[in-house]
Amino acid sequence: MEATTFVLFGATGDLAKRKIYPALYNLFIDQKLPLSFSVIGLGRRELSDKAFQANVEQSLLTFSRREANDPVLMENFLRKFRYNVLDVNRKEDYQKLLQLIEQQEEELRMEPNRMFYLSVGPEFFETITANIHESGLGSAKGWKRLVIEKPFGHDLQSARDLNKNLSKAFTENEIFRIDHYLGKPMVQKLDVLQQSNPVLQALWGNRYIANVQITANETVGVEERAGYYDHVGAVRDMFQNHMLQLLMMLTIHLPNNSTSENVRFKKKLVMDSLKLLQKEDVSSNVIRGQYGEGTIQGKPVVGYISEPNIAATSRNDTFIAAKLQIDDYFWRGVPFYIRTGKRMKDKSTRIVIEFKEPLKQSGTAADTKMPNLLIFEISPNEGILLQLNTIDPLNKGEFKPIHIDFHESRDNVPEAYENLICDALHGDSTFFAHWDEVELSWQWVQPILDAYEENLVPLHLYTAGTYGPVESDELLAQDGYHWWFDDKSVQEIESIKGGQYAYHTND
Amino acid sequence: MEATTFVLFGATGDLAKRKIYPALYNLFIDQKLPLSFSVIGLGRRELSDKAFQANVEQSLLTFSRREANDPVLMENFLRKFRYNVLDVNRKEDYQKLLQLIEQQEEELRMEPNRMFYLSVGPEFFETITANIHESGLGSAKGWKRLVIEKPFGHDLQSARDLNKNLSKAFTENEIFRIDHYLGKPMVQKLDVLQQSNPVLQALWGNRYIANVQITANETVGVEERAGYYDHVGAVRDMFQNHMLQLLMMLTIHLPNNSTSENVRFKKKLVMDSLKLLQKEDVSSNVIRGQYGEGTIQGKPVVGYISEPNIAATSRNDTFIAAKLQIDDYFWRGVPFYIRTGKRMKDKSTRIVIEFKEPLKQSGTAADTKMPNLLIFEISPNEGILLQLNTIDPLNKGEFKPIHIDFHESRDNVPEAYENLICDALHGDSTFFAHWDEVELSWQWVQPILDAYEENLVPLHLYTAGTYGPVESDELLAQDGYHWWFDDKSVQEIESIKGGQYAYHTND
Repeated sequence: MEATTFVLFGATGDLAKRKIYPALYNLFIDQKLPLSFSVIGLGRRELSDKAFQANVEQSLLTFSRREANDPVLMENFLRKFRYNVLDVNRKEDYQKLLQLIEQQEEELRMEPNRMFYLSVGPEFFETITANIHESGLGSAKGWKRLVIEKPFGHDLQSARDLNKNLSKAFTENEIFRIDHYLGKPMVQKLDVLQQSNPVLQALWGNRYIANVQITANETVGVEERAGYYDHVGAVRDMFQNHMLQLLMMLTIHLPNNSTSENVRFKKKLVMDSLKLLQKEDVSSNVIRGQYGEGTIQGKPVVGYISEPNIAATSRNDTFIAAKLQIDDYFWRGVPFYIRTGKRMKDKSTRIVIEFKEPLKQSGTAADTKMPNLLIFEISPNEGILLQLNTIDPLNKGEFKPIHIDFHESRDNVPEAYENLICDALHGDSTFFAHWDEVELSWQWVQPILDAYEENLVPLHLYTAGTYGPVESDELLAQDGYHWWFDDKSVQEIESIKGGQYAYHTND
Repeated sequence: MEATTFVLFGATGDLAKRKIYPALYNLFIDQKLPLSFSVIGLGRRELSDKAFQANVEQSLLTFSRREANDPVLMENFLRKFRYNVLDVNRKEDYQKLLQLIEQQEEELRMEPNRMFYLSVGPEFFETITANIHESGLGSAKGWKRLVIEKPFGHDLQSARDLNKNLSKAFTENEIFRIDHYLGKPMVQKLDVLQQSNPVLQALWGNRYIANVQITANETVGVEERAGYYDHVGAVRDMFQNHMLQLLMMLTIHLPNNSTSENVRFKKKLVMDSLKLLQKEDVSSNVIRGQYGEGTIQGKPVVGYISEPNIAATSRNDTFIAAKLQIDDYFWRGVPFYIRTGKRMKDKSTRIVIEFKEPLKQSGTAADTKMPNLLIFEISPNEGILLQLNTIDPLNKGEFKPIHIDFHESRDNVPEAYENLICDALHGDSTFFAHWDEVELSWQWVQPILDAYEENLVPLHLYTAGTYGPVESDELLAQDGYHWWFDDKSVQEIESIKGGQYAYHTND
C-alpha cells in the first residue's frame, strides 16, 4: 500500500477516540496499514506528542475490539502519531502544518500522499478545505484525499452549496464521504450475497417478494446532542443518509466483479427509479413521530420536549416511517417500508424480506402458515435468518415456522470504521456516499422537509419504549402487512426457538 | 381413536424390544393410543403375562427415548399387555388366540378392531396371514389391519407372489408395509417443506437444481445378520426400499391437503418416470462394492469375506452407488445419485441438493465460490442446512461459504416407529410403502439383480472406513460433480464453522 500521511482534524474529539484510533490500531494489528504511515493529529488545544500518544493509548484500552496490552506493538503503533496545534481559521497554522508534513515526508522518504480526515463539525468543512487548497497542503505531487463525516448539508440546496465549495479543493474522486452504515460488514455483503448465490438470485425481485422492511431502531433518546438534533430530526439524522443507503445497497444489481464506478452508477439508477413524492402526498406515505415519556428496559424516561436543552414547544421528529416504491423492472409493485426512531423498545438494525404466499393470495389456504422471511440482521448482532414453514413433529399436521440461521462470531466482525478507513487508504470509494446519490437522496427527502415545515404532516406522539406511533402500523396494514418482530411477533419467535432466539441480547 | 387390539407376532423378538414397545410407550405418554387399547404378545416360548410385562418394562428402561420411571404410568401402561403362546404353524393356536381376543373384547366392551403386527421373519408372512384368514381372526365386524416389516420379497417375482398371497387375507387398504425410513421425521417433512414454502418451491426442479445426492452410510459391518445379508446385499437390503422411498418422497409434487391416495398415486408417477436401465447399461450407472479390511474410528476391522458365517468366496455387495434419472417436466436433466454402504467412514443419512451456478456454467467465473447447497440431514441428527456464499469479512474480496442451519432439538423428534404405529392405528397409510411403488421399485431394481447375477457388473473392493470404491466418485466426476461432505469437503466445512460444525457427533 502507498505511503500515507493521515492528517486528522479533530484529533482530541470524541469520534477520534471512540472510532478512529481503535480502527487504525486494529488495521495495524491486521497489517492493513501502509508500511510507511504517519498520523498528524490536529486540535485547538496545545498538546505534546507524548501527551497525544497517551490519549490515543487510553482510547485503545477503552474502545478497541481487540486487547491492546502488548507493549511492543503499542510502542510501534504510537510512534506513528504526532500532534500539531491548529486553529482552523488561522492560515499560518496551515503553513506550519505544511512544513511539518514536508519535513516528515523528507525525513521518512515518504511519497507525499496525504489523507485529510475531517472529524469536526460540518460548519468547518468549507473553511478547512479552502485552507488546505490555499496553503498548498493539497498541491504535492502525490495523491490527496478528503474524508468527511455526516451531515452533508441540511437540505438539497445546502448540500449542493457544500459540494460546490468542496469541489474547489478536491475532485469527486478525491472525496470520501463516510456513511458508517456502509462500513458495517453485513451491509457490505448485501449485494455479494445476492450476486453470488443462485438461490437468492432466483428469489430476488417482485416475482417472489411481497414487501421489504428496513428498520433502524435505537433505545437512546436525544442524549447530549440536543442542540444539533433539534434542528435535524430523524429524517435528516438517519433517513436521508443511512436508511436510503441501506435501500440502495439492497436493491442494486451489480455485474460480477463490479468496480466502485458500477456501484455509484447503479445506486444512482435506484434513486432515479424511486417514485418522487409530491409535498401533498407526504402525509399518506410518511409517518412523523416524537417520543413522549415512557419506560425503556424498566426505567422511566422523559419525553422529548422534557429533555435538557429542548424547547417545550419543539415539533422536531424523533421517528419516521415511510413507504417507498422503486419503479423498475425488478422492484415495481414491491413496497419498501423504512423506519427509524429513538427511544424505541429494542435497539436493532435489520432488513426483513417478506415473500409472497401464492396459496394465501389465491384464497385457497385457510391455514396457520407464516410467510417465508429472509432477514439480514445488521446490528447489534450480525446474521442471516431464513424463516420456513414445516410441520410440528409432535403435532402432526400443524404448521410451525422454523428458522435456519447463520450468525457471524463477533470476533470476526471488523468495525465499520476499520473497513472504511482501510478502503479510503486504498482509494476505493465503493462503500462511500457519492455525490450523485447524496444529491438524489436530498432531492427525494426535500418534499418531506417542506411538508414538515409547512405542517402538512401530523406529528404523532409515541410512548418511549414502544415501536413508535400506531400510525406506523397502519401504514403497512393498509397494504395487508405488518412490521415483523414487533411485540407479539417477537414473542412468537422466541417461543418457536424455545427461548433460545434472542435478537437483542448483545447491545 | 377407535378401540384396538394390537396382536403382535414376534413379541419376544429384538425389534419388539428395541422399537415397538418404546414406541407404544411414548405414544401412551403423549396420549396418542386409543383409550381402549390392548396388546396381545405372541411367541413360541411359554411366558406368563407377568413375565411378559416385566420384559416390556425392561425394554422401556433400556430403549425408551423418554424416562420410564413413573410407577403409576408404568403400571397403567403394562396393564394393557397380555401374552399368548403361539406356534405359527398350529391352527389350534390361532383358535385359542381368537377365543382370547373375543373374550377380552367382550369383557372390555371393545369394538373388534384388530391390528396384526408381524414382527417376524418374511418366511412366516404367508403362513400367518393364511391362518389369520382361515381361523376367523380376520372376520370380525370391526376393521382389521396387517402391519409387516421388510423384506417384501427377494426380487420382482417373489414380491408379486408374496403380495398375491397376502391379498387373500387382506386388501391393499388393510396392508401397512413398514419402511422405517418413511417414519423418520425429516423424511415426513420433505414434501411439506417444499409445498408450504414459496422460497423452496421457486427453486424446486431442473431450472435451478444441478444434481441431487442421497446418501445412507453405515459404519457397522454385517454384524450378526450374516446368513440373511449374504443373500440380500445392499441393493435389496437398502436400495430397493429405503433409498428409492427417499427419492420418491423428495420428488413427488403433492396438492395442498393431500391424502394418502394422492401420495400413493404421485409416488407411482415418479417410479413410472424413472428411466429404466437395461441389464447391459447397469455397469455404467451402478457401482457395486464390497468392503475389505480397514479401520473404523481408529479400530481395525476385518473385510466382509472374513466376517463370521460369510464364505471366503462371497461376491455379495455391501455398497451400491447409482445414477438415476426422472424423465418428467420437473426433473428431466437432473441426475440423482444414490449410495448406501456398510463400513463407511461416517454414519449418516442425508440428502444434498446442489444448485446450478449460472456464472460457472457460462464460463465467466474463475473464482472460489462453492455451489449453493440445500441439505436435509435425516439421521443421526435432524436438520436443514443452506450453504450460501459470502465474502470473508477479514479477507475482503475472497468468497467464503456460510451455512444457515436449523437443527431440531433431539427431545422433539419422535422415533420413526412412533410415527408409523400411530398412523397405522389411525388407518393412515400415507407413510407406508404401497404395493404399486413396491412393485415398481422391484421392477427398476430387477435388471441390477440380473446384471449382478450374471457378473456383468464388476465388484469393487473398498477399504473399510472410507467412502466406498473410487469408482463411486468417478460416477459423479464424469458429470462434473463430486459427492458432498466426503473427506476433504468435510474438513472444509468444519473449518468454515470454526470447528463447530459437526455432522456426526450424535451417533
